[in-house]
Amino acid sequence: MSETCVLVLDAEPLPRLDRLAGRARVVHADEHTLAGQLPGADVLLVWDFLSDAVREAWPGEGPRPRWVHTPSAGVDRLLPALADSDETVITNARGVFDRPIAEYVLGLVLAMAKDFRGTWELQRQRRWRHRETFRVGGTRATVVGSGPIGREIGRTLLALGVTVDLVGRTARETDAEFGRVHATGELPSLVGQADWVVCVAPLTSESAGMFDAGMFARMKPEAHFVNVGRGQHVVEDDLVDALLEHRIKGAALDVFAEEPLPADSRLWDVPGLLISPHMSGDTAGWRDDLCEQFLDNFDRWEKGEPLLNVVDKKLGYVPTATPGPTP
Amino acid sequence: MSETCVLVLDAEPLPRLDRLAGRARVVHADEHTLAGQLPGADVLLVWDFLSDAVREAWPGEGPRPRWVHTPSAGVDRLLPALADSDETVITNARGVFDRPIAEYVLGLVLAMAKDFRGTWELQRQRRWRHRETFRVGGTRATVVGSGPIGREIGRTLLALGVTVDLVGRTARETDAEFGRVHATGELPSLVGQADWVVCVAPLTSESAGMFDAGMFARMKPEAHFVNVGRGQHVVEDDLVDALLEHRIKGAALDVFAEEPLPADSRLWDVPGLLISPHMSGDTAGWRDDLCEQFLDNFDRWEKGEPLLNVVDKKLGYVPTATPGPTP
Repeated sequence: MSETCVLVLDAEPLPRLDRLAGRARVVHADEHTLAGQLPGADVLLVWDFLSDAVREAWPGEGPRPRWVHTPSAGVDRLLPALADSDETVITNARGVFDRPIAEYVLGLVLAMAKDFRGTWELQRQRRWRHRETFRVGGTRATVVGSGPIGREIGRTLLALGVTVDLVGRTARETDAEFGRVHATGELPSLVGQADWVVCVAPLTSESAGMFDAGMFARMKPEAHFVNVGRGQHVVEDDLVDALLEHRIKGAALDVFAEEPLPADSRLWDVPGLLISPHMSGDTAGWRDDLCEQFLDNFDRWEKGEPLLNVVDKKLGYVPTATPGPTP
Repeated sequence: MSETCVLVLDAEPLPRLDRLAGRARVVHADEHTLAGQLPGADVLLVWDFLSDAVREAWPGEGPRPRWVHTPSAGVDRLLPALADSDETVITNARGVFDRPIAEYVLGLVLAMAKDFRGTWELQRQRRWRHRETFRVGGTRATVVGSGPIGREIGRTLLALGVTVDLVGRTARETDAEFGRVHATGELPSLVGQADWVVCVAPLTSESAGMFDAGMFARMKPEAHFVNVGRGQHVVEDDLVDALLEHRIKGAALDVFAEEPLPADSRLWDVPGLLISPHMSGDTAGWRDDLCEQFLDNFDRWEKGEPLLNVVDKKLGYVPTATPGPTP
């Protein structure tokens, strides 16, 4: 049996793949050379997971890697291009981002309830202006996305005394932690009761554009919207209008239709809109964690064991029933 | 029996005391008239709890109110002036601020871990700059103050996976939630292990100036300090030096030696220092809650029942053994 070839679509910094020494041949590609190198690769590690290069090189000529791993939770940059390649298994970074993103979202919720940005802006102006803020306990949140990250966000909000309505692609009548899981079809009625609407859904053709003028119109004027899913979930112009017309009170976006967000985007200075550069899950050591997760799965690959975190290419995410890693 | 006279040291907005109609005569005082009105009052409601007028008018001439209520957690503006008035009972607002302040502190901790201020400053500059942030889960906090607010802060941090060392005036070897309570004498060694040092102690002669150059020198360079106790707990110049010399990473102050913080204070623009105007506990409806708490206690007073939240005037706070209100 010939040596396994692991092709890495590079990004800075490079992954630490010392554990593969003597076990696989590691070959590096960039966006320009990727297409030509794919036929010789058994495994593709999409280290530059924000790149569209894999989708653009697919299906292409010649054999394809049998395993493609993306060190991200979302697989929307691989699908639907790879959906029909029945020989190729896609795995993702399920689990790594759960706690960091849950903390980030809770931080945003508290920051908005306590108006930290307003306070720090007053600090910049050396102005002492006492205001009343809001309690988070006793409020209600709709969390859209019932995968591990959405569940962890929900769990974290529950711990603060928030009532959580969890929304998934399909309803589940009973859920040990959340009572039940609501179907996406219930979203329009749920958001009308929510103080916090959090989007952490996988991006699919069904979820794209789900937060549009109609959805924002159903929210309460006191509601805040948080997106840590994908920029394409939101019709950005509609969100801007909703904020400018005070149809909702505030929003925080960590993801955008175009990333990096261009310097001339109108989003940067919309009142009530908090912008962060797609970093909600990226806590110190995250790249090491992502490497370890890939390498652990490589151990399974080498032994012929079933891979963990296999994406259902029709659904666009790892179904909950699939065994996932225990953090 | 003559009608009870309730004297109110006013502040805007006035308290809603409708429940006293027909039960007591309500008389209003300001800082100038207070001294002359004290002899005729049975009960003093220090609605303007940030004023020093009561302390300045005490003991004065003539009889004193037998009950003084301050709608604040701290009683440092009444003591030690009232400490020797054995006929006068002091009660405070124990319980009202627990959850709001715990949420505020958790919000600050998350905001510092995720560098929200840095992100929003970059937003102002229309700059997209991805950075790694820090996980709060797995870190360690020292919470100084083991009363209801300190315990609620600790509980909230525990829920996020933070290890919490709770510090009180006296040690307790067992504690159902925190394992044990450390004595103040252990503080210098505890802060050296802490990622977060939170001050929420009552201000007494023992705790004043407790956070000084020596204490900051014992903290880790990665540590953050949060003060929601009283400004006098901190030697502010020492904190500034610790921040400027990078002996600690950051701090958030909600309370100050002088309030409002003067516009020309050097504190406003110390790098790494977050300033808020003594508002951590003040969430929408807080004044109503404070009124209700006073009026509930007035019901007990009228019936001759023991008051709730009686301050130990030697200690300077309500001892934990005293029955407190259930939220």
